[in-house]
Amino acid sequence: MKIAIAGAGAMGSRFGLMLHQQGHEITLIDQWPAHIEAIRENGLIADLNGEMITAKMPIYAPEEIAGLDQEVDLIIALTKANQLDAMFNDIQSLINEDTHVICLLNGLGHEDVLAKYVKKENILLGITMWTAGLEGPGRAKLFGTGEVELENIEPAGEAFARKVTDIFTEAGLNAVYSTNVKHSIWRKACVNGTLNGLCTILDCNIADLGAQPVSEKMIRTIIHEFAIVAKTEHVELDEEEVFNHVATTFDPNGVGLHHPSMHQDLIKNNRLTEIDYINGAVSRKGDVQGIDTPYCDFLTALVHAKEGILGAQ
Amino acid sequence: MKIAIAGAGAMGSRFGLMLHQQGHEITLIDQWPAHIEAIRENGLIADLNGEMITAKMPIYAPEEIAGLDQEVDLIIALTKANQLDAMFNDIQSLINEDTHVICLLNGLGHEDVLAKYVKKENILLGITMWTAGLEGPGRAKLFGTGEVELENIEPAGEAFARKVTDIFTEAGLNAVYSTNVKHSIWRKACVNGTLNGLCTILDCNIADLGAQPVSEKMIRTIIHEFAIVAKTEHVELDEEEVFNHVATTFDPNGVGLHHPSMHQDLIKNNRLTEIDYINGAVSRKGDVQGIDTPYCDFLTALVHAKEGILGAQ
Repeated sequence: MKIAIAGAGAMGSRFGLMLHQQGHEITLIDQWPAHIEAIRENGLIADLNGEMITAKMPIYAPEEIAGLDQEVDLIIALTKANQLDAMFNDIQSLINEDTHVICLLNGLGHEDVLAKYVKKENILLGITMWTAGLEGPGRAKLFGTGEVELENIEPAGEAFARKVTDIFTEAGLNAVYSTNVKHSIWRKACVNGTLNGLCTILDCNIADLGAQPVSEKMIRTIIHEFAIVAKTEHVELDEEEVFNHVATTFDPNGVGLHHPSMHQDLIKNNRLTEIDYINGAVSRKGDVQGIDTPYCDFLTALVHAKEGILGAQ
Repeated sequence: MKIAIAGAGAMGSRFGLMLHQQGHEITLIDQWPAHIEAIRENGLIADLNGEMITAKMPIYAPEEIAGLDQEVDLIIALTKANQLDAMFNDIQSLINEDTHVICLLNGLGHEDVLAKYVKKENILLGITMWTAGLEGPGRAKLFGTGEVELENIEPAGEAFARKVTDIFTEAGLNAVYSTNVKHSIWRKACVNGTLNGLCTILDCNIADLGAQPVSEKMIRTIIHEFAIVAKTEHVELDEEEVFNHVATTFDPNGVGLHHPSMHQDLIKNNRLTEIDYINGAVSRKGDVQGIDTPYCDFLTALVHAKEGILGAQ
């Protein structure tokens, strides 16, 4: 299958590499010049569970795509949330009537962005529990195991979604076809919507957040706002189950000592965050539905204020 | 007049010194051992607008008061908000039927604490726009000018309140008798309730907070919560006027480059904050009245979480 990876950072490198190893025709697309240069020169160099692998795959900057005479069967979207729209604006020439897109970004509402570029029956949504890291331009560190859950958003997309599930699984990506991927997306968004914003604003790791007596009420209130907005999209979140799911991350012997990605983006690297696609998305959806979401509103504003204060870009 | 200063830090030193200079019989009370020791040894040494003054005044730790055979006419409360209750618990022996207390603390609801120790007709509330600093134990730096606004909380207290107004004014403290001191207290609490918590959580100065496009809505929402709760205490805040009042602080050529006191307490010195007596007080009062105050709730929780993360004491 001809597959483009829109956003070939750490996770995109994993998907590109594993699908390339299975014989698919991969095109990487990324906007980091040093990364592009390194992969063109040396290929993608990956430490895959301790085995060093070099894979030659073409890589382009998004703005180079229009000059190619190329269409693909599948685009795997793995950009940062705030880069998705610009990416697809740049790579429209890859898309024909049969091109499908699977969106694996964290956060909510990406299907609305994608619908500007591809018809709804060709849009698949998914979440992934794989991890991935970059050690430098062109160098991926890919350890551990994970899985992918995916589903078409329109009934007409089911056959292709099942095909993607098979292709991913053959490549070792452990995909399952879901009958309720939106529930999984919202449930995962609750984890990001609590840990990311709070640890960023409080400048702390997950265990430290979990150890504060006041945290439970903050987290439960945010989950409640997600749940009442999710309900308007026919997604039923069990708030107690979601809270307990979030609380499993507090364990210092698990991921507790890690800082969430938003903390790394903003506090460590002074980069703009994805808050508009997590808590900010709930605020906007709530507005449309006439539902108050004050904690999501306030947390989104605090993160934007912090972006401004730190001069994040 | 026999006057005790309950909390003889920077501001308490100013009031004690200026009233002492006018001939009043002052007793300082403070809980900082080095400060007590320095004042006992050398007197209070103050740089009063450039003039060095040494004033010999007795000073005690709160727990020493019970051992004295002494009552006073007036207690000026200038503790940190979270030390008020413990202070008055320790110094009850100073209080007789005629003893009045004037509370000059920032924040809300202190009259409820004081009412445990002194009858309501003897309680006066005030706010002060004076500034004061300590350069070290026993050494105050007192520059600039200011004023005091005060009022009895029960009609029976008016005569004494007017007497205190005169005494303060004679001592150069520029007091005015107010007919609506609660309005002034709430209006000042709005300044503290916006700048203090937000600059603390965002770790920024006032100008940086004011410069963020998202700040206006956060500040207006917090002021709105203060206003709807104040209304239940028959205090009418003009939200637009209060917002404009808060916004005057953003000017970098004014106080904008300063960090609010809560930031200094928590971020710089890792001390517990007064948030429970500002936004936290609005949350509690809102709870009692069945009024939602989510921004005050969330901001109070965030500050408490940050206190825990920093191990503040």
